[in-house]
Amino acid sequence: MPHPRLTRGVRTVKFTLAYDGCRFAGWQRQKNARTVSATLEGALSKIFKRGIRVAGAARTDSGVHALGQVASAAIPSSLPLATLKRALNAWLPEDLLVRSVEAAPPGFHARFSATLKHYRYTLFNRRNRPLFERNVVTHVPGPLDLAAMRLAARLLTGRHDFKPFKSAGSQTGSSIRRLSRLSLRSQKGVITIDALGDGFLYHMVRRMVGLLVQIGKGRYPPRVVEELLEGRSPVIPPTAPAKGLCLMEVRYD
Amino acid sequence: MPHPRLTRGVRTVKFTLAYDGCRFAGWQRQKNARTVSATLEGALSKIFKRGIRVAGAARTDSGVHALGQVASAAIPSSLPLATLKRALNAWLPEDLLVRSVEAAPPGFHARFSATLKHYRYTLFNRRNRPLFERNVVTHVPGPLDLAAMRLAARLLTGRHDFKPFKSAGSQTGSSIRRLSRLSLRSQKGVITIDALGDGFLYHMVRRMVGLLVQIGKGRYPPRVVEELLEGRSPVIPPTAPAKGLCLMEVRYD
Repeated sequence: MPHPRLTRGVRTVKFTLAYDGCRFAGWQRQKNARTVSATLEGALSKIFKRGIRVAGAARTDSGVHALGQVASAAIPSSLPLATLKRALNAWLPEDLLVRSVEAAPPGFHARFSATLKHYRYTLFNRRNRPLFERNVVTHVPGPLDLAAMRLAARLLTGRHDFKPFKSAGSQTGSSIRRLSRLSLRSQKGVITIDALGDGFLYHMVRRMVGLLVQIGKGRYPPRVVEELLEGRSPVIPPTAPAKGLCLMEVRYD
Repeated sequence: MPHPRLTRGVRTVKFTLAYDGCRFAGWQRQKNARTVSATLEGALSKIFKRGIRVAGAARTDSGVHALGQVASAAIPSSLPLATLKRALNAWLPEDLLVRSVEAAPPGFHARFSATLKHYRYTLFNRRNRPLFERNVVTHVPGPLDLAAMRLAARLLTGRHDFKPFKSAGSQTGSSIRRLSRLSLRSQKGVITIDALGDGFLYHMVRRMVGLLVQIGKGRYPPRVVEELLEGRSPVIPPTAPAKGLCLMEVRYD
């Protein structure tokens, strides 16, 4: 990808994307798999008749959804951005939508410039299984102790070494992250868990949710969180299913 | 189907069903097609180890959804209804859900005993196409004159000969129906159209919605409704797509 400043007629743009993750093998380009980034790059390459690579703010896993994923790319400045948005949405399949296309400052990078990410996990806590919601929620039919889950969520909030919540295959380097918010809301048996932070380890949100559900079921007391964060617990937080997770927003300063 | 009163150990039950119509060829049993009634009958027959036929309140078309379809059947009284509900939901596929199973009085028939049906049609009136909602709404991106649509809806309400809103293949007999309510609500670009009445002709709701959309776009003035109901208009109301329609509720006195 040529540097925008060195190439005439090229500019950096910021795409805000929504996708239904069900039929995608995640964000990141892979051989022989339908991925979000490859699908977007395919549409951009068709429109501009040359290969274009995009960078995503988050490498969402297979089955994970997005309402506010952000991607950046250097693209020819031959097309007005509103026209580009329309052309993209005409090319893209029904499970991938471009919500906005904006000009970005030179050097903007969807991943490295991001300052905050907001994920939402949705639990369907009713006895009947979900129908229309079945691909975007995780069904937990039994009773859940919300007060215990909220207490555990408060203990998770803040700057910690989240190593026990990271899966193998994770990025190397420090596992210290700042979780600025982890809140639970329950409405008519639908529990939404919002996680906001500067960055998340591989599977971190899904493992935090997996642990919260175990705590809600009474399998562990909320203080297991402290023991885990202090490296004193042998508990391995289970990974909640991908389909309940959605990348809501990525913020840039 | 033996009459419940003449058969020992058989009782009439009322099922309330929800289904995602996308992958069903409608309610009514057909050869070589996946239909809702045949799927339900298949599960009941597996559970009771004998053939069971169900009657549905409405013969919803291919692609039409339901949150409150009602079916009746005569079933062996060997199983508590709560157990039957659990067994059914374990057997049924993910796009068909039994919301409740209740004992019904002898002679109860889901179709003939119904006194009111409530259908809802959802229009997605935003510029961006729908993503997660794409299978349950119809996208109408341009501006719509809601006031004109509401006026037309008021003119449709009441007891009329709805012949111009019926498609071929409809039930024979009178095309006079009482439409007790046809109301529009718009919230953040999502327009829900609620139609309540004692009965609906084949495609009647979809054709009323098709006409309302044309009126909203300014193709016809609202008074075309009066001309149609009086048999004085050559206009043929277009049939709105099936996927935007949902059977919400069936009432019994």
